[in-house]
Amino acid sequence: MGVVVRNIRRLDSELVARLGAAGVATVHEAQGRRGLMSSRMRPIQQDLGLAGHAVTISVPPGDNWMLHVAIEQLQEGDIMVLAPTAPCDMGYFGELLACSAMARGCRAMVIDAGVRDTRELRRMGFGVWSTAVSAQGTVKETLGSVNVPIVCDGVRVDPGDAVVADDDGVCVIPNAEAEHVMENARARIDGEDAKRKRLSSGELGLDMYDMRGNLAAKGLKYV
Amino acid sequence: MGVVVRNIRRLDSELVARLGAAGVATVHEAQGRRGLMSSRMRPIQQDLGLAGHAVTISVPPGDNWMLHVAIEQLQEGDIMVLAPTAPCDMGYFGELLACSAMARGCRAMVIDAGVRDTRELRRMGFGVWSTAVSAQGTVKETLGSVNVPIVCDGVRVDPGDAVVADDDGVCVIPNAEAEHVMENARARIDGEDAKRKRLSSGELGLDMYDMRGNLAAKGLKYV
Amino acid sequence: MGVVVRNIRRLDSELVARLGAAGVATVHEAQGRRGLMSSRMRPIQQDLGLAGHAVTISVPPGDNWMLHVAIEQLQEGDIMVLAPTAPCDMGYFGELLACSAMARGCRAMVIDAGVRDTRELRRMGFGVWSTAVSAQGTVKETLGSVNVPIVCDGVRVDPGDAVVADDDGVCVIPNAEAEHVMENARARIDGEDAKRKRLSSGELGLDMYDMRGNLAAKGLKYV
Amino acid sequence: MGVVVRNIRRLDSELVARLGAAGVATVHEAQGRRGLMSSRMRPIQQDLGLAGHAVTISVPPGDNWMLHVAIEQLQEGDIMVLAPTAPCDMGYFGELLACSAMARGCRAMVIDAGVRDTRELRRMGFGVWSTAVSAQGTVKETLGSVNVPIVCDGVRVDPGDAVVADDDGVCVIPNAEAEHVMENARARIDGEDAKRKRLSSGELGLDMYDMRGNLAAKGLKYV
Amino acid sequence: MGVVVRNIRRLDSELVARLGAAGVATVHEAQGRRGLMSSRMRPIQQDLGLAGHAVTISVPPGDNWMLHVAIEQLQEGDIMVLAPTAPCDMGYFGELLACSAMARGCRAMVIDAGVRDTRELRRMGFGVWSTAVSAQGTVKETLGSVNVPIVCDGVRVDPGDAVVADDDGVCVIPNAEAEHVMENARARIDGEDAKRKRLSSGELGLDMYDMRGNLAAKGLKYV
Amino acid sequence: MGVVVRNIRRLDSELVARLGAAGVATVHEAQGRRGLMSSRMRPIQQDLGLAGHAVTISVPPGDNWMLHVAIEQLQEGDIMVLAPTAPCDMGYFGELLACSAMARGCRAMVIDAGVRDTRELRRMGFGVWSTAVSAQGTVKETLGSVNVPIVCDGVRVDPGDAVVADDDGVCVIPNAEAEHVMENARARIDGEDAKRKRLSSGELGLDMYDMRGNLAAKGLKYV
Repeated sequence: MGVVVRNIRRLDSELVARLGAAGVATVHEAQGRRGLMSSRMRPIQQDLGLAGHAVTISVPPGDNWMLHVAIEQLQEGDIMVLAPTAPCDMGYFGELLACSAMARGCRAMVIDAGVRDTRELRRMGFGVWSTAVSAQGTVKETLGSVNVPIVCDGVRVDPGDAVVADDDGVCVIPNAEAEHVMENARARIDGEDAKRKRLSSGELGLDMYDMRGNLAAKGLKYV
Repeated sequence: MGVVVRNIRRLDSELVARLGAAGVATVHEAQGRRGLMSSRMRPIQQDLGLAGHAVTISVPPGDNWMLHVAIEQLQEGDIMVLAPTAPCDMGYFGELLACSAMARGCRAMVIDAGVRDTRELRRMGFGVWSTAVSAQGTVKETLGSVNVPIVCDGVRVDPGDAVVADDDGVCVIPNAEAEHVMENARARIDGEDAKRKRLSSGELGLDMYDMRGNLAAKGLKYV
Repeated sequence: MGVVVRNIRRLDSELVARLGAAGVATVHEAQGRRGLMSSRMRPIQQDLGLAGHAVTISVPPGDNWMLHVAIEQLQEGDIMVLAPTAPCDMGYFGELLACSAMARGCRAMVIDAGVRDTRELRRMGFGVWSTAVSAQGTVKETLGSVNVPIVCDGVRVDPGDAVVADDDGVCVIPNAEAEHVMENARARIDGEDAKRKRLSSGELGLDMYDMRGNLAAKGLKYV
Repeated sequence: MGVVVRNIRRLDSELVARLGAAGVATVHEAQGRRGLMSSRMRPIQQDLGLAGHAVTISVPPGDNWMLHVAIEQLQEGDIMVLAPTAPCDMGYFGELLACSAMARGCRAMVIDAGVRDTRELRRMGFGVWSTAVSAQGTVKETLGSVNVPIVCDGVRVDPGDAVVADDDGVCVIPNAEAEHVMENARARIDGEDAKRKRLSSGELGLDMYDMRGNLAAKGLKYV
Repeated sequence: MGVVVRNIRRLDSELVARLGAAGVATVHEAQGRRGLMSSRMRPIQQDLGLAGHAVTISVPPGDNWMLHVAIEQLQEGDIMVLAPTAPCDMGYFGELLACSAMARGCRAMVIDAGVRDTRELRRMGFGVWSTAVSAQGTVKETLGSVNVPIVCDGVRVDPGDAVVADDDGVCVIPNAEAEHVMENARARIDGEDAKRKRLSSGELGLDMYDMRGNLAAKGLKYV
Repeated sequence: MGVVVRNIRRLDSELVARLGAAGVATVHEAQGRRGLMSSRMRPIQQDLGLAGHAVTISVPPGDNWMLHVAIEQLQEGDIMVLAPTAPCDMGYFGELLACSAMARGCRAMVIDAGVRDTRELRRMGFGVWSTAVSAQGTVKETLGSVNVPIVCDGVRVDPGDAVVADDDGVCVIPNAEAEHVMENARARIDGEDAKRKRLSSGELGLDMYDMRGNLAAKGLKYV
């Protein structure tokens, strides 16, 4: 504990933007259904989707001192990803810290804990995905770390990983896999338009995906 | 497992529409406070209320194969009601399946699990009540059943039952009781307008419902 | 059980209004980080903040009889605060009761349980903070008490306490401490504007709060 | 509500005893992995397994009046299965009621709520599977029903169904399927002894169940 | 925050012992079904029942410094009752602190959070009721208070209140009501022996409590 | 997905045994309060403590096929650590698989999901730490992986890491840190005996740890 890593390897911003445009459901599928945070991780706003470079923050429960340390490490397009070392859903983050983060080009936070000033955060356009909303104030007494590997809501996050977040939740794409995942995502998106049209026109998935044979072979009975 | 029932008895659509117009709180009261799903079952959209005929779907945890099978059974005005055979809140349903369901006249889903593509589903006007939002992808490996009796979020649902859903949650009205429940609901609604006016004008429920005697008899003390 | 206290000491309404304007996060900090309900207590509406005098209601689980009794005790600017004597998240409160409460000048409710008719309540502008949304109907069989001390979602509430509620949750300020808390809140608010500007302009909290020395003394390492 | 069904069809007691001897995991598998209550349903004692005829009890939340009504309907070998009509985990059942139930030959209860006097219940040898332990007292004000179909912890239970309970949880076997389920269970048990010996001697499931081909076909890679 | 009250009014120890002998279910009923902690509060041992004088401890989340302060205030027969100011279930208490507490005559703890070294605590005969078991270590950085009023698991506890704990949970009896509650408890216990005998001999509660008339009047139907 | 790593680096068995003897609370502290699973992870047995080499298993929700694959990779002294790729607490493991695992020298399992046959597992002396007990049967349809890095109940586990488990929970010690952690643990244990004696004899932690000055400096007030 008590370590700040200053140089992290960020992905190409254009690649991250493309992952964000693909959206959580698509990139999650595109990397083999891995990297998705749980259904406890919810946005405080609606209809916002984005992506960024993970700046990770490990904090002691009920202590948000490291957020100030982390903000100095932020660069344009970063997303803060914070996890306390034990579950404790107080309000580690609010409007003032968001002002500071936005001044450095950071537009969003993912936090396995609580945030406050949610109305103001929505007004500012600062995106938040959290497992709680809480005004409960924290202390500034004990060190944590910035830009070390963490586990956030069950998902391993390394500094510099791509983080994609939208109404469906949050997905983390390891730095080294991002290019490959985006290729897969691209292929999925390309196929989806055609599928969407066929399904909307009334063609059944049973036929489009040619499922009837397999279903019968497994023993499905129509009565 | 592995059964699809093709012919189910649907209620008269006009009756179902009237149940929907009455709303969840009213129809739930009108059938003796039964049939209501729990407070875990929440809408992904606001200010939408509707009703439909239940097409039930029983799936293995983490497997959404049966959704494709179910969609073929949908008719105008149906609502899909899905429960996995063990709790598992992955994302069984999303935009593409909604396109397919809407092509057959289905406008809503009730699911004791997760859905994804929530932003798109709201845009399309496809109503969803779920116990989770999750992008987590499912497999297509194991059979389930369509249009068999299921328990969804603690409530027994038979195929063809009326399902009413709005901001307050989801209520299921057994096919055979629907007419009687609607009569009760009608009577409640008729009485409510008058009550609303009296209460809004300042008359107390204590007086309007003549409660003071009973309260005193039970021993209520004013100090 | 079975007691209604008719005369409670309400705070000066202007003071309560000022606490409301300060907001939950600020008043909670201003009283030493105490009095905040948990993250389970959520608003059914967005972007509404207000404050009022607590009228407390203790009810048996699944029984809302005392709400009718409580409404008679309401005065302009009151907020009902309800807790069942054991956890039971049915729908104790809805539109009709809200009509009655509004007729007496009450505009909000805080309830460690469920409410129903949420769409109508939002339309009416009646504010609700609850731990559940549920249409489940209650009975009127057993006495509870009005304007006795209660514990609501883990917070002690005495009748006449100030209750502040907004998007971040609910905070209770004991009657006797309200003036002092508002002074603290005032000081915080005064300081926040300046801080907001400095942080928004890019100054770091590390410098503004002069944290670097302490962090180093605790052993923080930059690598 | 407010109905007591006096004549229910109970299964042959010897058949029920055999289902109990087979145990929850086995009978659950033997009926196609259906009928199992959730992992929230836990025993208050260890190392007790039994089975009985379901006497179902539907009660209003926080009201245990119907338990007295239900006890009159009990016969030798029955198990009470209780569910409140909305979640409310107070202590509906304790030592005195157990004395009464045991006097009629009932030795166990399954309850989607709380029980109390757990130490005494263990001493008496009265088996309890519950979703909570709670001393919270209930009222006797509102009617419920006895021996009507209920849903208990997500499982439909009809009066007279077989209920099997042990350290792993609770499984319900519909009356009409019991014989068939027991045949399947018998076949499973017969096969398990041989499997147990082979596995204990070091033979791998991979070989015993001949899985290697399928795994390779699905693409499993050893590195 | 940061206050230690040294002189608290403890009840007569013999009275507290009698409350303990009566047990949680009985004293909870005897004080009007109030004062019971929730079903989340569970013992780490089985078959232990006791009572003591509450020494209350309010701690910041994840910080157990105040436990050392509290132990100095302990006297023979006290029970520590600890609640963090926000939910955080780390391991605030373990074997070493128990050695220290026992040296001062304290034999038990009630904690709305986690404890560790549970095996050793059971061996030492130190009773623990907690809402979690967790080895997660805490810091010693921030002040809390000792012997101030707290809310623990939803129940108000004042220093010097009687605390009764057994397998059913934990009940708090306000100092001023203890004598009266014990009288009520005594009356309940006296009546229970006779009831137990009658019920065990087969007499029905329906008859013993003369319920048949009321049930019929409410409309109960036997079919 | 679909990868089995056959050669993993296991720690020296004697070192692992010493970590196990130190116990969860001690090793967790000794590695800077990291690596502890949450309070949801509970043993199915009491008074068992042990340690082993992690063999990690990643499975699709509701599918236990990979357990058979994993068992072939087990060696003397291994502990299986299993996490599904999405939360799904069915019964992935029971008696027959335990027979097979024990035949290869494995004596315990840590699983972020359910197990069944708990009575038999206790009888066999096979240790289990799980987040659920459930008899719910799983399928064998979809591949997972063995001996890849996983996150189990919020903790990163690499194959070959040391796993320590006892009544307090489960702690994971990365392979590369194990020696250093054991040194720290050794130092803690050495110090604890002396502390235990001093505290048991009545010396206060306030004095033994010399806390009074710091407490006063922070502003603690005795009244």
